[in-house]
Amino acid sequence: MTRGRFITLEGGEGAGKSTQLRALAAALRAQGVEVVETREPGGSEGAEAIRALLLTGAADRWSPRAEALLFAAARADHIEKTIHPALHRGAWVLSDRFLDSSRAYQGMGELTDADILTLHRIGSADFLPDRTFFLTLPEGEAQQRAWVRDGDAADRIGGRDAAFHADVAAAFARFADQEPARIRAIDASGKPEAVTARLVAALQDLLP
Amino acid sequence: MTRGRFITLEGGEGAGKSTQLRALAAALRAQGVEVVETREPGGSEGAEAIRALLLTGAADRWSPRAEALLFAAARADHIEKTIHPALHRGAWVLSDRFLDSSRAYQGMGELTDADILTLHRIGSADFLPDRTFFLTLPEGEAQQRAWVRDGDAADRIGGRDAAFHADVAAAFARFADQEPARIRAIDASGKPEAVTARLVAALQDLLP
Ligand SMILES: Nc1ncnc2c1ncn2[C@@H]1O[C@H](COP(=O)(O)OP(=O)(O)OP(=O)(O)O)[C@@H](O)[C@H]1O
Ligand SMILES: Nc1ncnc2c1ncn2[C@@H]1O[C@H](COP(=O)(O)OP(=O)(O)OP(=O)(O)O)[C@@H](O)[C@H]1O
Ligand SMILES: [Mg+2]
Ligand SMILES: [Mg+2]
Repeated sequence: MTRGRFITLEGGEGAGKSTQLRALAAALRAQGVEVVETREPGGSEGAEAIRALLLTGAADRWSPRAEALLFAAARADHIEKTIHPALHRGAWVLSDRFLDSSRAYQGMGELTDADILTLHRIGSADFLPDRTFFLTLPEGEAQQRAWVRDGDAADRIGGRDAAFHADVAAAFARFADQEPARIRAIDASGKPEAVTARLVAALQDLLP
Repeated sequence: MTRGRFITLEGGEGAGKSTQLRALAAALRAQGVEVVETREPGGSEGAEAIRALLLTGAADRWSPRAEALLFAAARADHIEKTIHPALHRGAWVLSDRFLDSSRAYQGMGELTDADILTLHRIGSADFLPDRTFFLTLPEGEAQQRAWVRDGDAADRIGGRDAAFHADVAAAFARFADQEPARIRAIDASGKPEAVTARLVAALQDLLP
């Protein structure tokens, strides 16, 4: 039994991660691959309980430091309980956000990228995806898609300004430069089917 | 306004930490000191919510790595929301367990003491007590006290064997050797009043 592959989708809000995750899972299943769809924070019983702590309460309920530790704890549980078992039985795992989102969102303020990577070493022994797709859109377009979807409803993280979104996009681009074998920037503009085709093409080398 | 002092009580189960915390708080109040009594895991709204995650569910609900991250997250919240504000208004804070318990319980297996200290740096910027009292008892005596108290009721952590308790005691003794200015081993045998007198004597240098 070959180990499955672990693929993560990253990018700012509204870039199309959830849409593409579903489409990519369908495309892989059509090729006979068993696929587990998951997301962060969450993806296992314990991690979903931590997610509930992270996403409820006042916006300042958690300090950036406590928040980073909770994300790392949730990720450790997600990997141990959901991702590893699936990969070991040969399934592919697709995750909507993963470590690179913590690096982009929690590693640019009070904590550094090195701190977030250290938490990942302690929590999850540096376990990394086989491939990470960073969905890119021209500035403002992702927020426009999210706005069409959500209207005025803004969550704790979504209601940020343009400079913040630009910083997040720059962080993802930096990670892609640092780890070109793992992280691929994918143009997320155009029709959903066109984006899915780009993703499928960019993981051909991982297929059996 | 002088900053208050932060004192922690450590030691194995049944050593008398909770008993002595109450007695020490009373002794300090009798000297006119404002005292906040707290405990870990917990001690703030967020940390108590994390405590509930840590102490409920099956014994193997959390891996050692996820558990260490959750303890560190709870501690970060406890320090930020409860301990720092109290110290800054001049109160003393007494905590029933703190960082050294994480070092003794989570830093001797899959993770090292260095890992636990790294989590404390990332979570809480290396914030340390002004003094830590490590309550010592001859082997078996603490477990006997706990047994008298609890009878057959054993919680997730209490129901461990003698070798485990000896390892924990040895870890605390090592920490005391490494940081003699902060950590003091205190003989916890004899009448409670006698132990309290030893504690009060061992913090005279911290009183105004
Ligand atoms: N290629 C596309 N063209 C136009 N609209 C799209 C495209 N892909 C997705 N959308 C729409 O844009 C919105 C955002 O997409 P989606 O929810 O997949 O993004 P996301 O990256 O998962 O966002 P979030 O980070 O908020 O979860 C949705 O309403 C979706 O239907
Ligand atoms: N000096 C003492 N002599 C005899 N019994 C004591 C003494 N101090 C405390 N006890 C009793 O021993 C039991 C354990 O004490 P206590 O609960 O304070 O310990 P603890 O260190 O807080 O334990 P735990 O780690 O389980 O919370 C209690 O029943 C307490 O009343
Ligand atoms: Mg989404
Ligand atoms: Mg106690």
